[in-house]
Amino acid sequence: MTIQLQEITKPDLLTQYRQIRQQSLDICAPLEPEDYVVQPIMDVSPPKWHLGHVTWFFENFILAEQVPDYRHFNKSLNYYFNSYYESQGPRILRSNRGNMTRPALEVVLEYRRHVDEHLEQWIRTFEGREMPPELEQLLVIGLQHEQQHQELLLTDIKYILGTNPLHPAYRPQPERNAPGYAADTRFIPVEEGIYEIGYQGDGFCWDNELSVHKVYLHAYEIQDRLVTNGEFLEFIEAGGYDQFEYWLSEGWEWAKQLDVKAPLYWFQQDGTWHQYTLGGMQPIDPDLPVTHVSYFEADAYARWRGMRLPTEAEWEVACRQLYTQIPRESNWLESGQGHPTARKDANDYQMLGQVWEWTGSAYLPYPNYPRLKGALGEYNGKFMVNQMVLRGGSCATPISHIRPTYRNFFQTDKRWQFTGIRLAR
Amino acid sequence: MTIQLQEITKPDLLTQYRQIRQQSLDICAPLEPEDYVVQPIMDVSPPKWHLGHVTWFFENFILAEQVPDYRHFNKSLNYYFNSYYESQGPRILRSNRGNMTRPALEVVLEYRRHVDEHLEQWIRTFEGREMPPELEQLLVIGLQHEQQHQELLLTDIKYILGTNPLHPAYRPQPERNAPGYAADTRFIPVEEGIYEIGYQGDGFCWDNELSVHKVYLHAYEIQDRLVTNGEFLEFIEAGGYDQFEYWLSEGWEWAKQLDVKAPLYWFQQDGTWHQYTLGGMQPIDPDLPVTHVSYFEADAYARWRGMRLPTEAEWEVACRQLYTQIPRESNWLESGQGHPTARKDANDYQMLGQVWEWTGSAYLPYPNYPRLKGALGEYNGKFMVNQMVLRGGSCATPISHIRPTYRNFFQTDKRWQFTGIRLAR
Amino acid sequence: MTIQLQEITKPDLLTQYRQIRQQSLDICAPLEPEDYVVQPIMDVSPPKWHLGHVTWFFENFILAEQVPDYRHFNKSLNYYFNSYYESQGPRILRSNRGNMTRPALEVVLEYRRHVDEHLEQWIRTFEGREMPPELEQLLVIGLQHEQQHQELLLTDIKYILGTNPLHPAYRPQPERNAPGYAADTRFIPVEEGIYEIGYQGDGFCWDNELSVHKVYLHAYEIQDRLVTNGEFLEFIEAGGYDQFEYWLSEGWEWAKQLDVKAPLYWFQQDGTWHQYTLGGMQPIDPDLPVTHVSYFEADAYARWRGMRLPTEAEWEVACRQLYTQIPRESNWLESGQGHPTARKDANDYQMLGQVWEWTGSAYLPYPNYPRLKGALGEYNGKFMVNQMVLRGGSCATPISHIRPTYRNFFQTDKRWQFTGIRLAR
Amino acid sequence: MTIQLQEITKPDLLTQYRQIRQQSLDICAPLEPEDYVVQPIMDVSPPKWHLGHVTWFFENFILAEQVPDYRHFNKSLNYYFNSYYESQGPRILRSNRGNMTRPALEVVLEYRRHVDEHLEQWIRTFEGREMPPELEQLLVIGLQHEQQHQELLLTDIKYILGTNPLHPAYRPQPERNAPGYAADTRFIPVEEGIYEIGYQGDGFCWDNELSVHKVYLHAYEIQDRLVTNGEFLEFIEAGGYDQFEYWLSEGWEWAKQLDVKAPLYWFQQDGTWHQYTLGGMQPIDPDLPVTHVSYFEADAYARWRGMRLPTEAEWEVACRQLYTQIPRESNWLESGQGHPTARKDANDYQMLGQVWEWTGSAYLPYPNYPRLKGALGEYNGKFMVNQMVLRGGSCATPISHIRPTYRNFFQTDKRWQFTGIRLAR
Repeated sequence: MTIQLQEITKPDLLTQYRQIRQQSLDICAPLEPEDYVVQPIMDVSPPKWHLGHVTWFFENFILAEQVPDYRHFNKSLNYYFNSYYESQGPRILRSNRGNMTRPALEVVLEYRRHVDEHLEQWIRTFEGREMPPELEQLLVIGLQHEQQHQELLLTDIKYILGTNPLHPAYRPQPERNAPGYAADTRFIPVEEGIYEIGYQGDGFCWDNELSVHKVYLHAYEIQDRLVTNGEFLEFIEAGGYDQFEYWLSEGWEWAKQLDVKAPLYWFQQDGTWHQYTLGGMQPIDPDLPVTHVSYFEADAYARWRGMRLPTEAEWEVACRQLYTQIPRESNWLESGQGHPTARKDANDYQMLGQVWEWTGSAYLPYPNYPRLKGALGEYNGKFMVNQMVLRGGSCATPISHIRPTYRNFFQTDKRWQFTGIRLAR
Repeated sequence: MTIQLQEITKPDLLTQYRQIRQQSLDICAPLEPEDYVVQPIMDVSPPKWHLGHVTWFFENFILAEQVPDYRHFNKSLNYYFNSYYESQGPRILRSNRGNMTRPALEVVLEYRRHVDEHLEQWIRTFEGREMPPELEQLLVIGLQHEQQHQELLLTDIKYILGTNPLHPAYRPQPERNAPGYAADTRFIPVEEGIYEIGYQGDGFCWDNELSVHKVYLHAYEIQDRLVTNGEFLEFIEAGGYDQFEYWLSEGWEWAKQLDVKAPLYWFQQDGTWHQYTLGGMQPIDPDLPVTHVSYFEADAYARWRGMRLPTEAEWEVACRQLYTQIPRESNWLESGQGHPTARKDANDYQMLGQVWEWTGSAYLPYPNYPRLKGALGEYNGKFMVNQMVLRGGSCATPISHIRPTYRNFFQTDKRWQFTGIRLAR
Repeated sequence: MTIQLQEITKPDLLTQYRQIRQQSLDICAPLEPEDYVVQPIMDVSPPKWHLGHVTWFFENFILAEQVPDYRHFNKSLNYYFNSYYESQGPRILRSNRGNMTRPALEVVLEYRRHVDEHLEQWIRTFEGREMPPELEQLLVIGLQHEQQHQELLLTDIKYILGTNPLHPAYRPQPERNAPGYAADTRFIPVEEGIYEIGYQGDGFCWDNELSVHKVYLHAYEIQDRLVTNGEFLEFIEAGGYDQFEYWLSEGWEWAKQLDVKAPLYWFQQDGTWHQYTLGGMQPIDPDLPVTHVSYFEADAYARWRGMRLPTEAEWEVACRQLYTQIPRESNWLESGQGHPTARKDANDYQMLGQVWEWTGSAYLPYPNYPRLKGALGEYNGKFMVNQMVLRGGSCATPISHIRPTYRNFFQTDKRWQFTGIRLAR
Repeated sequence: MTIQLQEITKPDLLTQYRQIRQQSLDICAPLEPEDYVVQPIMDVSPPKWHLGHVTWFFENFILAEQVPDYRHFNKSLNYYFNSYYESQGPRILRSNRGNMTRPALEVVLEYRRHVDEHLEQWIRTFEGREMPPELEQLLVIGLQHEQQHQELLLTDIKYILGTNPLHPAYRPQPERNAPGYAADTRFIPVEEGIYEIGYQGDGFCWDNELSVHKVYLHAYEIQDRLVTNGEFLEFIEAGGYDQFEYWLSEGWEWAKQLDVKAPLYWFQQDGTWHQYTLGGMQPIDPDLPVTHVSYFEADAYARWRGMRLPTEAEWEVACRQLYTQIPRESNWLESGQGHPTARKDANDYQMLGQVWEWTGSAYLPYPNYPRLKGALGEYNGKFMVNQMVLRGGSCATPISHIRPTYRNFFQTDKRWQFTGIRLAR
């Protein structure tokens, strides 16, 4: 029986609740009031909306259901803060989020305080006894959900600031960590055979990580670190963006139509490549992992190298062979870097944290996938088409949110997340 | 020789400058910080952008040209605050204005203070001597330009708040003026003959009001007041929106495609028609002039009544016969109503102030139209196609900004300005 | 009282009917079966559709109304061949015309024969007595309508063949007429004063040519011939397409977005300009009138020359001063040239025939415009917005279809008609 | 070692060539000339284009390469008939195919005769000796390619005729086969274990069927026949199209936006469901397999039944357990039905022929996928993203074209192919 990696120990639920709720506010602290409002592309939501939506989630799925005499802060906010739950009633068009100047930030913060007060009170009613498992699950889903939005908050803020021609920094860039380990990369062989994948611990996992099931893997090799900016620059300089033979047809059309010639946030200034980071514009550092690439670019890069992306099963099996626990010393939201950092040494595999790694697997249900009942059944299952799986978490992922079995997913043209590349063959 | 109406007396240029600049800030005073940022449709600009753009106009066309050692506040702001002047360099896409959270409002206000300080200083260098006419014209254009944006500021704010499902009020609605004069309407006859139209005073006018020229008018009659909500409701209730025989083909397609069934900001609540006003949602008052209609709706309404819209020449000739001066007691930006008000008595013709009146004239150059030289030549002339002329000013127009010869113009589908209807036959 | 030009004498109605109906078939004679089917852009209709639509017009407005026991050829064809008459029931989307392979051409031709037989029989019932005027008007409208579609047939065929990369000729190009008169152009002065425009003969005219009315014209001068290819090439070579100061704002955006750099059907081959004509690809002849330009291009060209386009009143008044009758020797559909030809001598003003001339007048109703009753009231009036008037007829206009008062109209970006330029100042 | 099913025996290459080339013409025989030209949606190509494109394939990849003194029929046709081969030069926009009236059908047929003559001559040069394997592969690919286009020809013709409001029949409907076997359905269990999938015979297969590889399958059950119209009607009548809980999010948006309420070609006439078939409009026969459904509909239907679609591995393993050879007596292009037919008896599994079955597998490369070299490497691999696999062949598939390992693939919203549903659990 395959053993799960040792997971991060978590404090009691009340403490978790407070810490996670506070973390959302901390992420927004450096913003100007104006930054909370806009939605420059459909994918990006206004920070004000994120702060309200995660709060609505707690109010709507817990307080309104579990607290008999609960008084809504303002029922008309449902209409704003429901994201996509058809069963939870009508809502503003997603494309309209960035036009809503009201409720104002101040009102949203008051909404948070209102819900926090009642939610914490509700948690405390279970002091001295165990919270029933189905309620605990609801609460944990709410917390995990808010952590997902923390990652989105940071990447959405990056988009809002990074596509502004003034390129304002979100906050001063922390000093760069020690010089990176720049030695050659190695490919780690994995033997042919039957493996089990999927979550099998007794902690929380999303429904899409179930059921645990067997897969047959043919022998393969997987890179021992992420692809770097320097390596990706070789692809650019070799004309990779202009050679259709490396591209999926849909990717080629995407790149030609949008005139894509480099990862998102790369700009040429005075003849050298720079990159917008949350710390402002920086020259490209060749040792850092490449990030903000689409699946199309990741796939083209791999083909240009004569290799391919790993499948999610290959990735998960390798991860379990290389790690025994979640590495706190990697690069997470809590690390405060806000950008991928260089490899430290030959044992730094960069699989957990840093950047989400595109896999060659479509996002589809596992065998015996147990879709959640009710509204939360809309959470994951209904997105299982035309998206690819990403693995491993990023520098914007809260460390307590990740698992080696975690399945993230995006459409193949998306680049505003911290996405990166690992090769297989 | 036709005599111009007596125009509003204006104070000295420095006082004008201060008053007009302050008026822009006053309009924005009731806003939340969030309201300054968004652009829900292409036509609407963020209030923050308006405040910066009018300031850029003074900086770019006066300070940068006339003050030898002038130091720009921040040259990169050019890129944001140039609206459409091709000759003044590149600028952000108009559709992108609402995504620019920076420069933040605070910076824009600082920009205003910076420019005000230098501009006032520049004006004062002419104390004791006359400002050369070409410089005075530049300054007056800057002021007239800012007044135009004051009208846009108010209508854009109305759009931002009025399309928010919370329908927040911009400010408390002033008490309604005395009960309106609701007697029947009369049609004022005008004799056939040669008339002169166009501006012929010695004050400021836009180039599009020139040259004065003769027109031959056949005998016509023009309504002695604006069409009211009550009258327009009859059109709605008679199924006017669903009978193609009253509509221009392009208007019919517009209405069907966008499912237009009433003026903008009209909503049915519990079976009765309401209207969003700057004072919040109000039941429709049948005595008030109808407003927020497109040319298509104005034209269809007139045809349904068996009449037509007046041409701009007909309108101007009638206006000169009915008025001897700009009526301060009408409804202007300074009146603080923010909405058209009811007719007061049988001599209240409602031609100046209240709502811009769609005419049946296309916006084209007058004979011997003298296009301005240089960048300001882009001001009016380049829009002379596929738009219709509106006349008379509205409750959002500064009173010192209007003239009976003033030619406003919009595309035939636009409704977010205070637009209304007067019939002719 | 202004005198109308002498109009073309027409044969009796039966002969007219037969000639005009035959002319439509003659236009299509050089086509391959495939050419009858497609609709490469919304503006262009399949030739098969034109042939059916004009036939439906006779069947629907005359036979179905006037012949008691008339049996429709096939009632389901209504759905295909109604163009835009809302009152005449549902119809296929205009954008869908080019997808309808059925009814096949053979069926459409049979439909024509069926209607012709009954229509001619109906005309013959009036032998020996006068046709009542309202019936004669109906019949004449049907014939005029078919003549309008003959012009469209030819220009649509040109578009279908001319945008095919094989550039097939429609038919061999007739030999070029004698070498053109290439002397300098003159500007003909017209005195200031009151003039009458609009149709005042006792023949047929469209409703939009009424009522006759007075206009006051300031003194002006109008060019004595059309602008030539050679002159337009100067504009191109002077970079006219890249200097926004000559362009209307909407025209500039149109040209930039579609990358317009020359009139429609102009191609650069081996460094020299060629033009697709109905006779195939030809080198640009500098003496020929420029054609296939949009209003935007015509207007920009005029501004670049420091002049303007004439208004439709200026055009009509000049036309009446220069012509006493419709010049048969000009270039019409019947001339078989299918392309504008060179000026013959100093008295060849090129105002009637050759190309439709863009005027600076918007297409709006004349004073006391008498809109037709019933379905035919949809004919002209409902298009009176956002279009410009063109005057004079073209090399694709049947000679018996034109009048100096004839008002053609198109949107400002249209170029597939034979459109051209005459200057005024 | 898993055994391949016994494949269809094929005649010698020259005979194959002649038969397959003739079959394309036979498919088009019932068409009117007009039907060859149009492209009502992007997915559908004009029949004339198909006939030319497959011919270009032989000319471009064989004659031009292998026959030293080969004279192209007309090099400019390359531009029309290259579909998507970037390496083979520029080509008309796909969206423009339906606007090309030339080359006319007659020319395309002449092109076919020209290429056939030279190709057959080239094949005959190998008489008496073996054709080198790489040349044979080229030729076979050309033939397989034409067979793929035969299926598209029939489905494109169906779209062209079936979306015409006259609903013309393509040809008379053959008499219905004997009354269908309407007994209950059974689910066939398959045991958990390691299986091999992919092509392992020594005949032709596409690159995407390689490499043969092991998969681990958990125990599952698969339906012993296709889902019928009657069963799908139950879904419709139960409101399945309006209950989001059964739908993928993207599918729900697709259905709502396009107002999809039934399979393609289903129409309600006088209260009962009818279906356009190649034999014309027919009442829905509840015993026939449902067809013309998108992946979204197939997936929603399966979820509504509490089941799912089989994966492609599950499908292939079941197919090999149920069949020992390709069943000639099933429903293929050669059967001439042009529509799925009813199940015959309890042993009629309907897995090969009838309709392509949507699987729950994304179209991705198999382990060790050997992409073809050169231009033909563009054939399959570059489409391996955002599409789903379909299996089994249809009533429009030539019988000699199918294999149980054959991987067809389409985007999830496509419905104009003969697509159907089989359940698994």
